[in-house]
Amino acid sequence: MDPHADTIRLLVSCPDRKGLVAAITEFVASRGGNILDLDQHTDPDERMFFTRVVIDLSELTVSADAFSREWEQIASKFQMTCSTHVASQLRNVAILVGKMDHCLRELLWRWEAGELACRIPLVISNHPDVEPVVTRRGVEFCHLPITAETKPEQEQRIVSLLDEHDIDLVVLARYMQILSPGFVEQYTNRVINIHHSFLPAFAGARPYHQAYQSGVKIIGATCHYVTATLDAGPIIEQAIARVNHRDTVGDMVRKGKDMERSALLTGVGLHLNDRVIVHQNRTIVFD
Amino acid sequence: MDPHADTIRLLVSCPDRKGLVAAITEFVASRGGNILDLDQHTDPDERMFFTRVVIDLSELTVSADAFSREWEQIASKFQMTCSTHVASQLRNVAILVGKMDHCLRELLWRWEAGELACRIPLVISNHPDVEPVVTRRGVEFCHLPITAETKPEQEQRIVSLLDEHDIDLVVLARYMQILSPGFVEQYTNRVINIHHSFLPAFAGARPYHQAYQSGVKIIGATCHYVTATLDAGPIIEQAIARVNHRDTVGDMVRKGKDMERSALLTGVGLHLNDRVIVHQNRTIVFD
Amino acid sequence: MDPHADTIRLLVSCPDRKGLVAAITEFVASRGGNILDLDQHTDPDERMFFTRVVIDLSELTVSADAFSREWEQIASKFQMTCSTHVASQLRNVAILVGKMDHCLRELLWRWEAGELACRIPLVISNHPDVEPVVTRRGVEFCHLPITAETKPEQEQRIVSLLDEHDIDLVVLARYMQILSPGFVEQYTNRVINIHHSFLPAFAGARPYHQAYQSGVKIIGATCHYVTATLDAGPIIEQAIARVNHRDTVGDMVRKGKDMERSALLTGVGLHLNDRVIVHQNRTIVFD
Amino acid sequence: MDPHADTIRLLVSCPDRKGLVAAITEFVASRGGNILDLDQHTDPDERMFFTRVVIDLSELTVSADAFSREWEQIASKFQMTCSTHVASQLRNVAILVGKMDHCLRELLWRWEAGELACRIPLVISNHPDVEPVVTRRGVEFCHLPITAETKPEQEQRIVSLLDEHDIDLVVLARYMQILSPGFVEQYTNRVINIHHSFLPAFAGARPYHQAYQSGVKIIGATCHYVTATLDAGPIIEQAIARVNHRDTVGDMVRKGKDMERSALLTGVGLHLNDRVIVHQNRTIVFD
Repeated sequence: MDPHADTIRLLVSCPDRKGLVAAITEFVASRGGNILDLDQHTDPDERMFFTRVVIDLSELTVSADAFSREWEQIASKFQMTCSTHVASQLRNVAILVGKMDHCLRELLWRWEAGELACRIPLVISNHPDVEPVVTRRGVEFCHLPITAETKPEQEQRIVSLLDEHDIDLVVLARYMQILSPGFVEQYTNRVINIHHSFLPAFAGARPYHQAYQSGVKIIGATCHYVTATLDAGPIIEQAIARVNHRDTVGDMVRKGKDMERSALLTGVGLHLNDRVIVHQNRTIVFD
Repeated sequence: MDPHADTIRLLVSCPDRKGLVAAITEFVASRGGNILDLDQHTDPDERMFFTRVVIDLSELTVSADAFSREWEQIASKFQMTCSTHVASQLRNVAILVGKMDHCLRELLWRWEAGELACRIPLVISNHPDVEPVVTRRGVEFCHLPITAETKPEQEQRIVSLLDEHDIDLVVLARYMQILSPGFVEQYTNRVINIHHSFLPAFAGARPYHQAYQSGVKIIGATCHYVTATLDAGPIIEQAIARVNHRDTVGDMVRKGKDMERSALLTGVGLHLNDRVIVHQNRTIVFD
Repeated sequence: MDPHADTIRLLVSCPDRKGLVAAITEFVASRGGNILDLDQHTDPDERMFFTRVVIDLSELTVSADAFSREWEQIASKFQMTCSTHVASQLRNVAILVGKMDHCLRELLWRWEAGELACRIPLVISNHPDVEPVVTRRGVEFCHLPITAETKPEQEQRIVSLLDEHDIDLVVLARYMQILSPGFVEQYTNRVINIHHSFLPAFAGARPYHQAYQSGVKIIGATCHYVTATLDAGPIIEQAIARVNHRDTVGDMVRKGKDMERSALLTGVGLHLNDRVIVHQNRTIVFD
Repeated sequence: MDPHADTIRLLVSCPDRKGLVAAITEFVASRGGNILDLDQHTDPDERMFFTRVVIDLSELTVSADAFSREWEQIASKFQMTCSTHVASQLRNVAILVGKMDHCLRELLWRWEAGELACRIPLVISNHPDVEPVVTRRGVEFCHLPITAETKPEQEQRIVSLLDEHDIDLVVLARYMQILSPGFVEQYTNRVINIHHSFLPAFAGARPYHQAYQSGVKIIGATCHYVTATLDAGPIIEQAIARVNHRDTVGDMVRKGKDMERSALLTGVGLHLNDRVIVHQNRTIVFD
């Protein structure tokens, strides 16, 4: 792969001050980089600066690696939290899934169709059912059944498998197990989950039944990064669908599944394209 | 007004049994009524029957009043909960409003434009600010300031005003006062409220700030009938708008207001067109 | 199959007159049928009557076949155009497809997931590429390459294949060949097509390039019945997506494909559930 | 007004080359300007560069005027097409309107509510009907009736009025007269129009009737800059609404009007916030 036919993506957040964009862009220009896309946002209340920069590496006068190294100095000088990612260096994604396979299928299908720029070397499930869907595509499938007793041990095996496959991003595609705080911390902003959402929200069990009983007219799904607080991590994307009195609970579940597929696919795609910055508990999404 | 150039609208709910539609339609046909629109729904789980029937009265062989009277016998025989409403007999609507006038203005504007089939003889507010908007249209404005002490007394005055004006429907257009259970009971399914909603929901104070801090991507508004349980009555309509990180709390408030206007207008319109049946805590909306 | 655990669906259109609903529902009630769902619409300008009735057959006092036969007499008396369909008698659907397989895959996937109530015994393509996707599911695949010379002959072979498999509905899932008027006539309102649509529309070649050059902000797809006039048949469903200046032609094509999948899937589902009446060149969709 | 509590907005388009963002941002930083918002887009096919920069002027070390003057040199050096606009210097907007007042009312209402950052000193109409709506707000109203004979002469009077009031932007709020090419040229990218749109489009007279006859499921409205080619100028914004068979032509017209109000309001707001760059016949909208 020729890195010079490639792009590098910078994501930066730091306290706002004058000259930030100038410092960044001068750095890029002086190394022969052409800025293809720059999206910047300053939070007026918190005085925080956020930017996403896409740089054409084709005429870069230094190597991509050198570029990243030298960039660290700028980053440090301005107290930037930042990431640099060469677009052609595909991330390794693992999918964790339970019994319901609609989100898994959506991700695998789009990946096959070339719409998700990543590798998917590994799918893990606590149920054996989805194996054929996975192995048919030549992806490794690991069945790790979980009971209350085996849970810590099985999570340890998951971590080993993720390490082995050098996984960059974990996608919970309707994986109905809660991950331990230790796991979540190790993969901060690198575990993406999907869950249903309603207007107004219904906590607790059987949310679709609750929603049905309240006659809600809109249901939805929320794709978010996983944090220690259940289902309350930074939101990447949300999708909604209208329902009416003719929709049974079953219809609402089916429409909800479609929203889950859509929001999860979009959320994962935004992450893979380095379009998401997490700041405190919210996201800046440059789409 | 010639009632024979008119329509009558039936709304019916009752336990499902065979022959219900036949009984209803035979009743109509035998009195010369032509059915212009019939929408029917049977809840498969609860075995409940719901229908809305619109009848052309122009060739009715009995008077509209006689039609309604005779209908009561059918209704009673089949244990129907039902309402009959002659379209040309406009309902009297009172609007209760606080300081924020966006919903009030939307309703008055649409009413002026002929898009709300009702009379609006009365607007009541606990703030004097909105008076000019109201009186300019020749609508009576009552300023009833409310304190913790005067609240019961002022609610009593509201009830008197509603009685005086023979009010059929009360619309809370961002009226920030909680009505007493006695009031709500007296106007069951005849008080419509609007409130903001989010995916997922944020209870408590300053919901837009909470939503902003969580980086939600979708905000909304919910129009519902008022019940004794705060903000949890049967939902008539919901509206949503997308937001992103560039939206400040102020932007979210502004977009939320637009959703409130839209959902409230739609909800009131559905009620005035006799398109809503309330069953338990949910609505069947024939739209 | 026990017809008494089943439903029958009536679709009726005829000139409006008094007593139509009464006549229909009395017919049903007198044969022990319970009406589960009735949706009716009267066109106020053309004085046309349209209805969809779903009847629970479980306590019917005559056989489903006898019911349908006797129904014909009512239909004839009121000059009704109508169809009766027993829900459990699944239709046979054939899919015709070109090189692009996104719509085909969507249909097959949903069918496998139990979301399309039909049989799919046959897929025909003028390209060999999609064969594995089809045969993997045990569906017969016929490769019928088409040139200007062989076109009439190949269409004849398609007709034979449709006859052999007793096909009720033909779905053109991005089948880029124009069907002859004779074919279309033989399958009136039984051929469903999908094509892109834009606001405002762009006729001619490379529509996405035209749309891109005009900077449209919304693209869409239209699902319709095929008539002799190209792409102008009665519309069943439309879907739209927002685009902006960051969307390349490629992005627009990808988003357009998603809309095509969505609108085609919805349109085919509406047809299979007997929810569509065609009147002149438009549809009444009871959804 | 203190210009130092203010922002300046740059809109730039030019052929892409390395160092453009660096040159722009270095220019800003060296004059004490803090960049609050920077959105940039490079068209990969045409190799064109577009950017919008918002600069906080509060610590600028030169005057806003000097800043703009010096900027001209940068602009010239890089062959930039650009505009600079100080946010606090409100534009003068004239509204031209025919008989239908829904768009006019929407604009005036939002303007009163502080949601449109402009002055509106002038409304011109060829009908007298809308006068009270205008003058009630203290806005000057000019009634200029138009016949085939008086048209050129009346357009000349319009131009004089626009000059007198130093108008920056002309909004055609359902103004049913075609402007002459000379007029359009004089106000290039400064005349905004609204028209209905459909999926697929219907040209010619009575488009809602055509749309109704075709049973379209989605209608919409398109807000665009006016060019010499009728209704084909660069699109700023589009809005859509779903319709079904229950919508009469009248309902479609009403829903279409709501879409027109919404799309026009959004389009005008985007222009006033300097969020739109026109390139060839399309727009780059930084929203």
